[in-house]
Amino acid sequence: MDFRVEDITQEEIDRRLAVVEPLTDAVRDLVDAVIRSTVDDEVLSAARGRIEEVTATLRTQQREGSFGTPFTPGFVGMPWGNAVVGARNALAPPLRIDQEAGGIAHCRMTLGAAYEGPGGCVHGGVAAMLLDQLCGEAAAVEGVPSFTGTLTVKYLHPLPLNAPLRGRAEVTRREGRKTFVGATLADADGVAVQAEAIMIAPRGFELPTE
Amino acid sequence: MDFRVEDITQEEIDRRLAVVEPLTDAVRDLVDAVIRSTVDDEVLSAARGRIEEVTATLRTQQREGSFGTPFTPGFVGMPWGNAVVGARNALAPPLRIDQEAGGIAHCRMTLGAAYEGPGGCVHGGVAAMLLDQLCGEAAAVEGVPSFTGTLTVKYLHPLPLNAPLRGRAEVTRREGRKTFVGATLADADGVAVQAEAIMIAPRGFELPTE
Repeated sequence: MDFRVEDITQEEIDRRLAVVEPLTDAVRDLVDAVIRSTVDDEVLSAARGRIEEVTATLRTQQREGSFGTPFTPGFVGMPWGNAVVGARNALAPPLRIDQEAGGIAHCRMTLGAAYEGPGGCVHGGVAAMLLDQLCGEAAAVEGVPSFTGTLTVKYLHPLPLNAPLRGRAEVTRREGRKTFVGATLADADGVAVQAEAIMIAPRGFELPTE
Repeated sequence: MDFRVEDITQEEIDRRLAVVEPLTDAVRDLVDAVIRSTVDDEVLSAARGRIEEVTATLRTQQREGSFGTPFTPGFVGMPWGNAVVGARNALAPPLRIDQEAGGIAHCRMTLGAAYEGPGGCVHGGVAAMLLDQLCGEAAAVEGVPSFTGTLTVKYLHPLPLNAPLRGRAEVTRREGRKTFVGATLADADGVAVQAEAIMIAPRGFELPTE
């Protein structure tokens, strides 16, 4: 595991995000366009060539391995490569998870073509991925880091693509290093996917049993 | 749900894949480069402009909504927009799931920077997403379509990024419209994540209880 500390100010963080977030959005839009495009093969192949050129300009200087999860000395996290919430990661759905005191995390989002499973619907695995992240953020609200121990997901009805969705997770109980979290994803018809997670804090982060 | 039928030959399928797969690979490589690049802001911003131009060429003609899950009259599926296995979807990890008789599905893969959760490790939600897809493919081996009913994932140790991983799912029991599947993701140290899923076939696909 990587625990890199980067001593930068909030202003510098905001400045960097202002550069990378529009770039990530542009790549997200490209991912969607490649899926939905019906242009001729020559246009597809030309696109490929131009993308390879752009990638080469970015690779002239790069980090080894992965982005990692650096944080500031004041514990502001910069998990910008994260698969679900990373500001530099075009795989991450367009969403922002907000945290509230009391172990609550929530978000609103609309998922496009790139998140498809059954035709026109959100992939069940994508739903599980989002719920895992929501549970982790709810458990982490009080500053205790955590890893997923178990995640149980129950699917009630398919979630539509290209429609407003809501996600919510809430800590129900803490017991030693374990935090129990319940979470849901909902559409206009109500809760579509439910999850329960047991998140585990690293040794040294035991909390008093409630 | 979308059940579009496209009457094309295997040769035409292969021809189309030969065009889109290298394009998808190029976008995957771009996603990775955006995460790991340490070039100057001007190079990042220039990249964004060029990506937007390429996207515009692809969007001159496009499908509404999402790719959908078309199949041929001979039931060859073309879920090319699928979030986990879609040939046109750069979010899908670079892997091919192979199916075997008896309700078995397996794959080998190496996940890069785009699949990060904890620093240097595969995101727990990505692991759940992969296991969901594997369970679905194991359940579908005998030609019965299925949706995930419940998915339970247990995390034993973190999976490393940039290292060879193996995934496997196997049907353990079928009962009416339910198919019970067990699945694992493993690295060099053995099984890291375990899952159990109950997959549900649409009405009309009841199987004799074994």
